[in-house]
Amino acid sequence: MPHHPVFLVGAGPGDPELLTLKAVRVLGEADVVLADDLVDASILGYCPQARIIRTGKRGGCRSTPQAFIQRLMLRYARQGKKVVRLKGGDPCIFGRAGEEAHWLRERGVACEVVNGITAGLAAATSCGIPLTMRGMTHGVTLVTAHTEDGRGPNWPALVAGGTTLVIYMSVSTLAATQRQLLASGMPGGMPVAFIENASLATQRQLHTRLADASRDAAAWGLRSPAIIVVGEVAALAQSPHGLLDASSAIGALERQEPTRRANR
Amino acid sequence: MPHHPVFLVGAGPGDPELLTLKAVRVLGEADVVLADDLVDASILGYCPQARIIRTGKRGGCRSTPQAFIQRLMLRYARQGKKVVRLKGGDPCIFGRAGEEAHWLRERGVACEVVNGITAGLAAATSCGIPLTMRGMTHGVTLVTAHTEDGRGPNWPALVAGGTTLVIYMSVSTLAATQRQLLASGMPGGMPVAFIENASLATQRQLHTRLADASRDAAAWGLRSPAIIVVGEVAALAQSPHGLLDASSAIGALERQEPTRRANR
Repeated sequence: MPHHPVFLVGAGPGDPELLTLKAVRVLGEADVVLADDLVDASILGYCPQARIIRTGKRGGCRSTPQAFIQRLMLRYARQGKKVVRLKGGDPCIFGRAGEEAHWLRERGVACEVVNGITAGLAAATSCGIPLTMRGMTHGVTLVTAHTEDGRGPNWPALVAGGTTLVIYMSVSTLAATQRQLLASGMPGGMPVAFIENASLATQRQLHTRLADASRDAAAWGLRSPAIIVVGEVAALAQSPHGLLDASSAIGALERQEPTRRANR
Repeated sequence: MPHHPVFLVGAGPGDPELLTLKAVRVLGEADVVLADDLVDASILGYCPQARIIRTGKRGGCRSTPQAFIQRLMLRYARQGKKVVRLKGGDPCIFGRAGEEAHWLRERGVACEVVNGITAGLAAATSCGIPLTMRGMTHGVTLVTAHTEDGRGPNWPALVAGGTTLVIYMSVSTLAATQRQLLASGMPGGMPVAFIENASLATQRQLHTRLADASRDAAAWGLRSPAIIVVGEVAALAQSPHGLLDASSAIGALERQEPTRRANR
C-alpha cells in the first residue's frame, strides 16, 4: 500500500500566529494529529477535521512512552491515513525528529519535517534579546543540560566559545548548571534571562545575573517549560516600559560605534 | 506624532510557505516594505499594497549602506507610515535586529520583531539533517566566520564543545575555516554538508568530509548564500533516493538503542 509521508510539524513556541503557512496547510489536510502537551490548544483549531491524540512530554509528569507514539504513527500511516506529529517549537531542535524519522523510514514510511520557530529564539525575541549582536558575540548555542547519558554538555568549552547560550529543558538542573558555568570561568555578573511560556499570554520573564540565577529563579518560582538565556545580549532585554538594566550593554555598544563599517 | 512600531520581520529561508501567519498579516498591513535582496520575490506578493524598497546585502556585491536603510526606516516611521523591514531567515540570527531596534528606539521609534525560520535550520532540515540528535550531540551552535572585528569565532572551543556547527555567510572564508577546524582537533572524516538556496527550487546540496570540504566546494562551484553544517548529524542527510552515506551514523545510533529510556 502506498503510504502518505508522516509529517513531523513544528508548532512554534505557542502563539498560533507563529505557525508557518505550511504547518497550517498540513494540519488542515491531516486525518490524525499526535500533539505534544506543549502544543497550545488554540493551534488544534487548524485541524478540526482530524482525530487528535494528545501525547504528553512534560518533564517530571506522566507521559506517553516514545515507543508507543512511534507505533501509533506507524499504524495510522500503514492504514493510509495522513498523519501529523505536532511538536512544540521546531522538530529538529531537541524535538526527536531525527530519531522518529529514522525509525519510520526503517519501516518503509517516509517522513517530511516542517520547521517551526524554536522556543529559544521566540523566548529571547519576546523580551527584546537579539541572540546574535555584532560586537558582542559571534554566534549562539542551543543546548540542553537534560541529556540521555547524564553527562551534560562540555560547559568549559561552551563558556570559552563565547557564544550566547540558550538552554532548553533545564529548570530542574539549574543549580548544577550555574555552578558549572561559574567553575568554567564565566563571570558572576553575566546577564541571565529566564522566560516561561514564551509568546503566550501567560509569558513571564526574569532578568538576573549568573551569580544569583539559581536563588532568584527559586524565589520567583521558575517552572518548566522555560528557556534560559545566558550571555551579554541578555542585558539588552526590554521591559514593557523600556530598557531593563541595559545601560552597561548599550554603553559598550556605543563605544564600538565608530569602528563599525556603515556599508555592511 | 504617535508612530507605529517598525516591524523587523523574518521572511524565513526562501520558500513562501515557511512564512509565519504573523509575518503575512504584518506584510498585508504595511505601507512601506524595505526588503533585503535575500528575500524571494514571491514573498512580496503578500504586500501588493505596499511601496517596496529593495536593499541589497549580498556579500561582495554593491549594497545599500546600513546607515541609509536605518534613516529610511526612521523617516517613513516619522511620517506615520507602517514600516516593515523584511529580512531573510530570522532577524535576530545574524540579521542585525538588535542594532536596528536599538538605533530606532534611541530616536523614539519602537520596534517589534517577528521571528522567521532561520536559514541554517531550514537548510539542514531540507536535506534530512536533524541539528540535534540524542546520543550524537548535546546541542547546536549557529556561528559566522564573517565577523566585523575580523577575529572570527573561537574554533578550538567550538570544536571542544562538540555541538553541531551551522556556519552562516562563510563561503568566502571556507578554506581558512576548514584549516582552523582541523587545527583545533576536529577529525578530517567529520561529515560536512553545504546547502545553497535552502528551501527554494534552486536548492543544491553537497555532502563531503572536513578534510575535503574546501576542495570539493570549489570543484562544485559553491556560492553564497549557503549554509555549512559540520558535525556527525550531517551524515544523516537524505538524498532524494534514500540515505546518503549514513551507514556509520545509523550504526552508532542503533548501538545506543538499548540504553534509551522509552519514557522520555
